[in-house]
Amino acid sequence: MAVYTDINDAELEAFLAEFDLGRLVSFKGIAEGVSNSNFLLETDRARFILTLYEHRSREEDLPYFLDLMLWLGEHGYPSPSPQADREGRMLKRLAGKPAALVSFLAGVSVKRPGPAHCFEAGEALARLHLATAGFTGHRENNLGQPHWAEMFDTCRDAAEALRPGLAAEIDADLDLLSANWPADLPAGVIHADFFPDNVFFLGGKFAAAIDFYFAANDAFAYDLAICLNAWCFEPDRSFNVTKARNLVAGYQQRRPLSPDERQALPTLAHGAAMRFFLTRMIDWGATPAGALVKPHDPLDYVAKLAFHRASRGRLDLFAAEE
Amino acid sequence: MAVYTDINDAELEAFLAEFDLGRLVSFKGIAEGVSNSNFLLETDRARFILTLYEHRSREEDLPYFLDLMLWLGEHGYPSPSPQADREGRMLKRLAGKPAALVSFLAGVSVKRPGPAHCFEAGEALARLHLATAGFTGHRENNLGQPHWAEMFDTCRDAAEALRPGLAAEIDADLDLLSANWPADLPAGVIHADFFPDNVFFLGGKFAAAIDFYFAANDAFAYDLAICLNAWCFEPDRSFNVTKARNLVAGYQQRRPLSPDERQALPTLAHGAAMRFFLTRMIDWGATPAGALVKPHDPLDYVAKLAFHRASRGRLDLFAAEE
Repeated sequence: MAVYTDINDAELEAFLAEFDLGRLVSFKGIAEGVSNSNFLLETDRARFILTLYEHRSREEDLPYFLDLMLWLGEHGYPSPSPQADREGRMLKRLAGKPAALVSFLAGVSVKRPGPAHCFEAGEALARLHLATAGFTGHRENNLGQPHWAEMFDTCRDAAEALRPGLAAEIDADLDLLSANWPADLPAGVIHADFFPDNVFFLGGKFAAAIDFYFAANDAFAYDLAICLNAWCFEPDRSFNVTKARNLVAGYQQRRPLSPDERQALPTLAHGAAMRFFLTRMIDWGATPAGALVKPHDPLDYVAKLAFHRASRGRLDLFAAEE
Repeated sequence: MAVYTDINDAELEAFLAEFDLGRLVSFKGIAEGVSNSNFLLETDRARFILTLYEHRSREEDLPYFLDLMLWLGEHGYPSPSPQADREGRMLKRLAGKPAALVSFLAGVSVKRPGPAHCFEAGEALARLHLATAGFTGHRENNLGQPHWAEMFDTCRDAAEALRPGLAAEIDADLDLLSANWPADLPAGVIHADFFPDNVFFLGGKFAAAIDFYFAANDAFAYDLAICLNAWCFEPDRSFNVTKARNLVAGYQQRRPLSPDERQALPTLAHGAAMRFFLTRMIDWGATPAGALVKPHDPLDYVAKLAFHRASRGRLDLFAAEE
């Protein structure tokens, strides 16, 4: 749920008047995205999503994200297209915040993806990786493997408080990941947050991807590993290998993995679990008791870390199964 | 901001399949309404608002509200039209809650209404009162004048804690209102919550009214008095008589007030301030310190009560001024 900033009538009228997009017909705050405020804005010509970037987005990164979305739209990838105002600007300000207007996309995200959704998601992720070829923007992944040890330093005490003994487990994982992290895998622009909330379907088929605000340069296979964690665990924290094989098979339908990428995938998935454990742990520690908006439970990712730790090298994700 | 209940994919599909409204194309939680969960639901044929009624709505009242909205739609008043499923039911269940699907309406609510908006709102309210003629549903106004003393009993201590001396002021107001409350004014179905959030405009003209979940049988002029408080006070808590005269003039454009109604209006406005003070005071007292979703500040309505107490009988709302 995300509407953190109110926009007054005059500000909104003035903002929209700088575009050539028609007259305002409807405007509603929507519960989409976690760190930004989002509004569905309709004119007599079309519908748009208005995003106000709140404190979690680094303002200096926003041009990269908008340029990437513009590139994807121009290269046929179904994703929100930023709208330029009459002076060609996509990144603007509204209600004291950085703001952008992007195209509205039809489609529905699934809360409980099935195996067929996973195949579609894998294929859609590979299409995204292929579509970014030639994009010249660059953003270092500030939540990538080299940063995890320092991230854990900020939440070690909260982790130990969450479950005694957890800090030592994480330290051991961090050492293992650091020693085994694959170098020189095929890399480019990754979405880095290709979770079910950010993928729209229509009639069971992939329709669009949204929320490119974690996109960065990193290994393509790491993006797939993030999806293994996000799409293939059941609510009871068990790993559904059928969904995982479908996800990988869908990906390979468009972009076959190299032998190095295949071999690295279990370690990448372990690392991807670490990355989301760390940010959830940090958010958890930073949220006062009794707050109405609860952060994600870090224990979900503690369970995923344990799964990957236990199954290192013994998980076959490449058997055909659809 | 209001999405209190999550709906899973299968529940939503099953719910929509009971209607003849097309295939799901988009589904987003929206920040509209305070006490219920609202979603914008789009099919390949049309757009709808899906409402899940949370604990504040009394389930036995819901048929009245839906019947009223259906009546209004059938009698040309721009308001959300409930959709019946294939078996003719408008009130259904979804995710364990009572639920209804109503038509989506274009229009934008104004956060800072100007004098012209007030004229439009007054006219729209009178149109609503005229449109309900013939509607045979009946709901007692359980937040009307006869209930205020018992409501205050539940929040007297919180009021006194908010500002020492306030409880005695409210007691005196309650006595005054009880002694002077007008009887036998023209009555019928009132909206009872015709606030700027619930009134949509397009190009500065009234477009639609929403949120009929406080509608009840009561004096028409009391509904106008609620609007005087909701539309005509400035953010600094001063009363804008130009807006008030416009609101009344707009109302009388469609439904001229009787001499009794005109004379009663200051007392009705004082009482309307009491009604909103009381529910805000009750919500305020019931909200734990530090909660992220803050209730409305009751002091806004303390100031409105003080204004009406001081200006009894000395406020001319009927001079032409537009």
